[in-house]
Amino acid sequence: MTVPHPTVGLDDVVHQRTRLGVLALLNSGVTLEFGALRDTLHLTDGNLNRHLKVLRDAGLVSTERRGSGRSKTWVGITDPGRAALAAELAALRAVIAAAEPQR
Amino acid sequence: MTVPHPTVGLDDVVHQRTRLGVLALLNSGVTLEFGALRDTLHLTDGNLNRHLKVLRDAGLVSTERRGSGRSKTWVGITDPGRAALAAELAALRAVIAAAEPQR
Repeated sequence: MTVPHPTVGLDDVVHQRTRLGVLALLNSGVTLEFGALRDTLHLTDGNLNRHLKVLRDAGLVSTERRGSGRSKTWVGITDPGRAALAAELAALRAVIAAAEPQR
Repeated sequence: MTVPHPTVGLDDVVHQRTRLGVLALLNSGVTLEFGALRDTLHLTDGNLNRHLKVLRDAGLVSTERRGSGRSKTWVGITDPGRAALAAELAALRAVIAAAEPQR
């Protein structure tokens, strides 16, 4: 067994389930408002902020404040983010294929 | 968007990439020797031991020492482990399907 298992290549920045959810939701190119992301992923503000910081620091998402007064934060995926998600999804497909006992 | 995203249901005990690799490798029902698991997943002894403890404490794998003198540890998946992996793989399929922009 020298061929590394497909999980070996998974990037924890992307694979962590909340961050995977954020990238997957944004992958269609839509930008989502912070509150919508938080509710869809059943998170607290603090939790989502923490994961958005990791994704932003890695250059995988961008955030933008819109509106005056109580402005809102909108989140979008970057090209590197889309590429990182594509690599994650390819690895997950390989994991699923490898895990299914050959019938 | 009130329907929770498929990543919301992921169980971190199973989803963490090393533990996911261990369960996926064992899912065919084969029991694997500690060293073979370690090398296939590119881990150190300490790292694999830490993750096996989490999986064993959750009842998802069982370990057994075989041989006299320098005995070896063999690892197998349990029925709850197989069920937990099946749930993870189903959720991952849903994540992949949801993430792919409808062409």
